[in-house]
Amino acid sequence: MSEEIIGRLIGDKIGLGQQALPDLYEQGYFGRPKGKGLELSLVEAAYLLDRTRIRVLSEGKELDFQAFFQAASSLEKGFEFRYVVYKDLRERGYYVQPGRPDFRVYPRGGHPGKSPAEFYVLVISERMPLPLQEIMQPVRVAGQMRKKLMLAIVDEESDITFYEAREKSMSGLMKAEVDEGGMATLLEDRVVLWDAAASRRLHEHGFFGKPVGERLQLSLVESAYLLDRGVITLVDRSGGAMDLQSFAAKARRIESDFDLKFSVYKDLRDKSLVVKTGFKFGTHFRVYKQVQGPGKVPHSEYLVHTVSVDHVFLPPVLSRAVRLAHSVRKLMVFAYVSDEVRYLEIKRLKP
Amino acid sequence: MSEEIIGRLIGDKIGLGQQALPDLYEQGYFGRPKGKGLELSLVEAAYLLDRTRIRVLSEGKELDFQAFFQAASSLEKGFEFRYVVYKDLRERGYYVQPGRPDFRVYPRGGHPGKSPAEFYVLVISERMPLPLQEIMQPVRVAGQMRKKLMLAIVDEESDITFYEAREKSMSGLMKAEVDEGGMATLLEDRVVLWDAAASRRLHEHGFFGKPVGERLQLSLVESAYLLDRGVITLVDRSGGAMDLQSFAAKARRIESDFDLKFSVYKDLRDKSLVVKTGFKFGTHFRVYKQVQGPGKVPHSEYLVHTVSVDHVFLPPVLSRAVRLAHSVRKLMVFAYVSDEVRYLEIKRLKP
Repeated sequence: MSEEIIGRLIGDKIGLGQQALPDLYEQGYFGRPKGKGLELSLVEAAYLLDRTRIRVLSEGKELDFQAFFQAASSLEKGFEFRYVVYKDLRERGYYVQPGRPDFRVYPRGGHPGKSPAEFYVLVISERMPLPLQEIMQPVRVAGQMRKKLMLAIVDEESDITFYEAREKSMSGLMKAEVDEGGMATLLEDRVVLWDAAASRRLHEHGFFGKPVGERLQLSLVESAYLLDRGVITLVDRSGGAMDLQSFAAKARRIESDFDLKFSVYKDLRDKSLVVKTGFKFGTHFRVYKQVQGPGKVPHSEYLVHTVSVDHVFLPPVLSRAVRLAHSVRKLMVFAYVSDEVRYLEIKRLKP
Repeated sequence: MSEEIIGRLIGDKIGLGQQALPDLYEQGYFGRPKGKGLELSLVEAAYLLDRTRIRVLSEGKELDFQAFFQAASSLEKGFEFRYVVYKDLRERGYYVQPGRPDFRVYPRGGHPGKSPAEFYVLVISERMPLPLQEIMQPVRVAGQMRKKLMLAIVDEESDITFYEAREKSMSGLMKAEVDEGGMATLLEDRVVLWDAAASRRLHEHGFFGKPVGERLQLSLVESAYLLDRGVITLVDRSGGAMDLQSFAAKARRIESDFDLKFSVYKDLRDKSLVVKTGFKFGTHFRVYKQVQGPGKVPHSEYLVHTVSVDHVFLPPVLSRAVRLAHSVRKLMVFAYVSDEVRYLEIKRLKP
């Protein structure tokens, strides 16, 4: 430790004199110059106090680490999470500065003044419900500033999981060329296409439906899509014809999020992707860039889960979805509809 | 096809004459003898009709497969799911009979009369919310009858995922021997134990908490457990002493399911298991049979998620939890509190 640096806690900032500049600012990029001295945030000061690089006075009385930590925890909501994340990133050798939404992180080997920040960091408590829009807002800001957005989720034991969140544009290679499918029936909650030849064609060329014997069972979104494109006609169990509107009304009663799922299904199919249920992965869809035929089904690239525009994530649920996608080597993508269908990719980061 | 067998649809059963017995019952174990003839359920008849083993008349008119399938779908709620599962199991070479809750399945090589059924089967639609008690009831019946319970969940594309559900008794090898922990403080939503030696001891001998510097951060359930056992004393940020009751009141406001989590945490710890957060896996806990020390942390055996006794599972969420547990080679266990803490293990089956 070089000569003793003393800071004063005023409000939620710690003011230090001129002698702090060479040691803390110029070498470690702690704090921001203010007047002739240096000003530290609470997390920066706690970090430096724990390493005995500074001492802190409050109203003339010295605060040890415990007293300062307790005071900071009262002064700043979320201080404990931010401290855990700040300390972790600093100890991994990154330069970190406070900034919107919580921190900026410089690339390895980089530092303020030498290189631009690489990440904006949003610190999240495992227990904090997380509205989609509170991710999208910093995702967009980061995108505009050519930064990446890092989510740092702190669990109840203060372990941190890091994610990167970004907007994603989706596109595939599969133009579904399907023509005549024939007549299908909506049964209790799924649709059966009866004609054997049409069933085979639709399954082989577009990877639609699931063959059950010589017939094809279609999911509700598949049926709506094929009906919308005029590939199939549809009747109910008593033989009454159904158009897209009457089918959608029924489908909505079977599946409350049918409209949302159908919008996303249609958008993905229109973007030349092949979309099948993601049930086995706990998501709405699994998505392939291309499927040459039922005998050559490749690995699906994406798991896509639709959420409403006002969706609120629970961090444990988010964590599970991303973890599961990684474990099966797929990318986790959340889809929502605002003016158009938009996609948010969230993936694990190992800083 | 042997000589033509004709069945008559009456109500939701199909009645066949005496000539059906040698062919269908004695060779394939289809249906149940009734009077001098044989009676088939709707799924059995649909299966046999699709294979042109029988013909079906209704009010003197013959029904082709499509007409029969539509009629059956109207007559019996859930017919389509049950048909998909019945057909799948039969085509895998199992003998299947209708029976509570949906089917009985005989072991490979076994059949009715030769060997007892191995599984009771509960057929579930992906879209059907599934109350915990609707699993527990057949789990218990199956357990009493020395059968296993198979859950067959049918997704929107008629793919089936099979699970086995059973009651599980949990026990470990780790008697936590911890004595004096000292004074800890409840901060915003977690607890810090300040004493370096006590922190080290608790972490090394019971794998409690997470070291942050020389201090130990404890989760709410860990703190409550150690407080309850008299290992630590607890104060709030203003230094006021907290007992278990006042701490639990605060913890409940931070974490609405605190009581449930604490009951299960305590039960598992009392059963000599080591319990840590399962956040990274999207569950409440990950559980070890034994942890020799922080340097020798083994693979955790279980993921445990607590649910209330009136919990309603959504099949996609259930699917995701079990899938994730398997992908990290752990067993998925749901814990709930009725008279005591009970555990339900759900694992994938590959019939």
